[in-house]
This record gives sequence, C-alpha cells and structure tokens, in this order.
Amino acid sequence: MLTIGVDVGGTKVAVGVVDEDGVILARTRRPTPSASPTDVEDVIAQCVEELRVGHAVEAVGVGAAGFIDADRSRVLVAPNLTWRDEPLRDALTARVRLPVVVENDANAAAWAEHRFGAGRGEAHLVVVTVGTGIGGGIVLDGRLYRGRYGIGAEFGHMQVSQLGRRCGCGQHGCWEQYCSGRALLHEAREIAGVQRGYGARLLELGGGRPEGIEAVEVTQAAREGDPAALDCFEEIGGWLGQGLADLAAVLDPGRFVVGGGVADADELLLAPARRVFAERLTGTRSRPHAEIRLAELGNDAGMVGAADLARHR
Amino acid sequence: MLTIGVDVGGTKVAVGVVDEDGVILARTRRPTPSASPTDVEDVIAQCVEELRVGHAVEAVGVGAAGFIDADRSRVLVAPNLTWRDEPLRDALTARVRLPVVVENDANAAAWAEHRFGAGRGEAHLVVVTVGTGIGGGIVLDGRLYRGRYGIGAEFGHMQVSQLGRRCGCGQHGCWEQYCSGRALLHEAREIAGVQRGYGARLLELGGGRPEGIEAVEVTQAAREGDPAALDCFEEIGGWLGQGLADLAAVLDPGRFVVGGGVADADELLLAPARRVFAERLTGTRSRPHAEIRLAELGNDAGMVGAADLARHR
Repeated sequence: MLTIGVDVGGTKVAVGVVDEDGVILARTRRPTPSASPTDVEDVIAQCVEELRVGHAVEAVGVGAAGFIDADRSRVLVAPNLTWRDEPLRDALTARVRLPVVVENDANAAAWAEHRFGAGRGEAHLVVVTVGTGIGGGIVLDGRLYRGRYGIGAEFGHMQVSQLGRRCGCGQHGCWEQYCSGRALLHEAREIAGVQRGYGARLLELGGGRPEGIEAVEVTQAAREGDPAALDCFEEIGGWLGQGLADLAAVLDPGRFVVGGGVADADELLLAPARRVFAERLTGTRSRPHAEIRLAELGNDAGMVGAADLARHR
Repeated sequence: MLTIGVDVGGTKVAVGVVDEDGVILARTRRPTPSASPTDVEDVIAQCVEELRVGHAVEAVGVGAAGFIDADRSRVLVAPNLTWRDEPLRDALTARVRLPVVVENDANAAAWAEHRFGAGRGEAHLVVVTVGTGIGGGIVLDGRLYRGRYGIGAEFGHMQVSQLGRRCGCGQHGCWEQYCSGRALLHEAREIAGVQRGYGARLLELGGGRPEGIEAVEVTQAAREGDPAALDCFEEIGGWLGQGLADLAAVLDPGRFVVGGGVADADELLLAPARRVFAERLTGTRSRPHAEIRLAELGNDAGMVGAADLARHR
C-alpha cells in the first residue's frame, strides 16, 4: 500500500505518492491559494484525487508550516497561511475519505531524514533547517518528539542575544536572526555598505547596491574565494555551531542533520559550524561529540516525511 | 521489596532505603572522602551494608554529580569528585552484590519529582534545579530522557550571552552565570558595592562589606521588602523565565518544576520567572503555556529518584 504526502507552504502545495522506502512514485503541485483555508483544502483534495488514480493509497499525511496541536488534527496558527485554529484533519478527511495525519512541516522533514536520509541509523537525532529562518525536528529513541502541545523543536526562537535583533515572532535576539538566509544577507549587505573595498565583489554581484545582493550571490562569491563572502559564512556558520552546542547541552543527540536553503552552501556553512560547535560544547573534552551532517532529501523531505508519518499513524 | 538510593555529592554521601511510594524508611550519611574513587565506593558500600540490616533490598541506585555514560555504568567525569572514566557500577556491584544503577544526580532528582513530587501526572516534564549552578532533568512521554551519550539536560550551559561572564565549564555566557545562587550574590554584591544608599540593607547584612553578603541574606532582605534585594530576585528570576522560554521552544513540556537552593525563595524567584516566561515564549499568544511549579522533594530528591530508577532498572 502507498501513502500520499502533502507539503503546504506559503507559496505552493506539493503532493506526492510515496512508497514504504520513501520513493516518490508520482507528484503534482499547485500554487497555494492565498484566500481561505477552505480553498487550500480544496486544492489539496484535488491533488490527492488526481494522484489516487492508478495508485492504491491508504492514507494522507500533511506537513504544514505552523503550530499543529498535540492530536495532529488542528493547525493552531500558521503565519504564512494566516490560519487560526483550523481543523485541517477533519476538513480533509471529509473531502478525501482517507485517514489524514497533520504534522508540522519541519517535523515531517526531520522524520524523513531519520527514515530515509542523513539521519538513518541514529535514534537520537536533531534536524535543523536553515532557510529564511530556522526550523527543525527532534527524533528521540527512534520516535518523532512533538512536545506536550505539539509545538516543540521551534529552535529558531531560542534567544541567543539578550538585546539582539528584532524577530518576526515579536521577540528580540532569536537564533534565526543570526543564523539564516536573512542573517547571511544582513552580513553581506552590511559589509558591502560600510567596507566598500573589502565588500567590492559582493557589491559588484549586487549590481552596485548592497540591497541588490541576494543569498545565491554570497554563496557564489564565497565559492570564488572572496574573503568578505567567506567572512559572512564564518559568521552564520559560527552561530550555527553555537546553537547546535546549546541544543547538545539540552538534548545530547548522536547526530545533527543540517538542511534548508542555506545548507546548499555545504562546507562553507558546516566547516565553521563544526569548529565552533567543538569549541563551545559544554564539557567538550570529556564527552563524545555529535556528528554534524548535511541533509540528503532536499525540498522533498516534508512531503516524504508526511507520507511516512501517515503510514505509521 | 525495597531499594536503596545513594546521592553522592562533593561534600557528603547520603543513603536511604526507599519504598515503592518514594517514602524513605531509613537513612544514613557520611562525609565524602576527598581522595580516590575507591574510598568513595567503600563509604557507599558501608552505608548500604548498614541499611540492609532489617530491610529486604533488591537493588541500589546511585545519583552522582557528573557525566554518566549511556549504559549508566561509568562516571565519565565528575568535577566535584575529580573522577575520570570511573567504572562505578561494576565497582559497587562487586562490593554490595546487588544490581546497581548509576545516574546523573540531577536526572535522578528530576525523576523523583516526576514520580512523587511536583511533576506527578505530567508526562512531559522539565525539572530545572537552581543552586550554585543550574542542573536539571527531562521526562518525555513519561520516561527519563538521558540523550544519546547520557549527557543531556545540562541546561546551565546553554549560552545566553555571547560575550558574557566566564563559566567554570570553560565557556562564556552560560545560563547559570545569570541565574543561580552565584548570580544572585553577583547582583547583590554589585549593588552594595556601587549603590551604597540603594544597597544599604544588603550591605548591613553583609557586615558592611559587599563580599560579606550571602544568599540567605539576600532572601531575608527581599522578604523584608528591601527594594535592592527584590531587584536581585527580579534579575535572577527574569533570567530563569527567559531560559525556561528557550527550553519551551525546544521541548514544549507541559510543566516546569523549579528546585534547588535558590528556589527556597519561592515566589520571590518564581513570580518574575513566570512573568518573563509568558512575555518571551515564542508564539506566546498562540499556544498553551507550560505551568511553572516549585519542586516538592527538596534535598531528598536525588536519593529518592536514584532508588526508584534502581527499582525500574
């Protein structure tokens, strides 16, 4: 039997038929309708109906970017979808007449890495997704850990600086303001703005304006060996290593898996992260160190993980 | 059948016979011999032999202040005991000829609060012990969570300030440098040193010298209503609330239990902690909030928890 995984993001709905080995047998995608939850549910149902033709599907797993309740039934709040307390599981069950499981998208992606990706074989796993912000998921003793209310693993909002940068969550100094795609741009644009010589290559790639610099260009310049761009990754990667050390103090996992768009830069990000992690880990000389590996499943992780969670519902 | 719990600290070894309800039926204690692990093991064995007379004991649980390995067998490092890679379980088993379980003392105390104290009935529990430093333990899905290598829940060494105060662990800016008995004294002595009028009562209690102020005196002055002493608890309690908000972002427990010597100040510490926790929790208006309660078992928690872990070995 097969399951369907759904990844509901702010811009697109990605849906796939997934087998028990995590292989995607068929897929489709639609733009996320910006209006009501009902419209999004209709689009998901249409995709599921389309993919069920020719595939024996037993259940549907949905990964959504938001707080999901402990019953994996309701979306408590989804900032990108402007949802509040939406009974997504029941609404979809009524439409598709299959069992439905709803999960936070980063939790679903973490589960996929545990089952089929860079987290295979490690029962104590922390997945950190460094994209626009920081998301993540926790696998403990081989099980997805969701927290008492379903809202665990919101790593991006650990405070790393008491009087630090403002965060979209309403707080100050959250980790994701120092380690994310946004933070990478903050560094690159600041260098290009105040250190014109040092930041010349970045400025050039930005079309002469600091605000013109995008994340891919920082990665490009760093790959060329530009010192200012490398400096940006040292800064972001260092904050990644510090945050992983903090998570290790709490969770002591056997492995960290790092994914998300910024992780496409690979060792540019992970080398400084590993170095700072080893320096800053408490009791660093008296304990085994967790591995730090790159995620393997890319953008499909959320869909594949949601499908697998539906299988093991 | 009964079990024996042992709490091995830097200054004393406390041993008790504990029943299945967590009641201590008999107890004894000795000073911790400062020399070799062998001497400490001899003292533990003597206490166990003494208490076994007249009690049908089936196993021994030992809580020790240090990193314990994942097999709950070896003490990897115990700063207060100056131990390194000590095979405590096997050494004790050979002496007492009973099954022995070794656990980190803060983990044992957290387990006791879960089973018999302020954590009863909550399967997702985080216990934070605010004493000289910060220790703690994690119960997830009703089980003690130890981490991949047995070294989880070292909360005191999460970094809360990038260029912050030095910590005994070798790092800078660890949480326990801002929220602990030591931090309380830091605040009180600083006020007494630089704000002589504001800090007059503290200074008086310290015999006229900032270094003369001790933690009990800060609590006394705060209970009298002294604004400077209350200020100290606002500061320490605020850092407690911030750290609990960070832990909630990661673990999303249903309840926090706060113990340790500084928690003897009760609402002087917990009231500011609750206020800052509610302010700083990510998504604070869109999620249920964990409760924050005072620990109930006091100094016996480690012994009682170790005994219960031996029962459920």
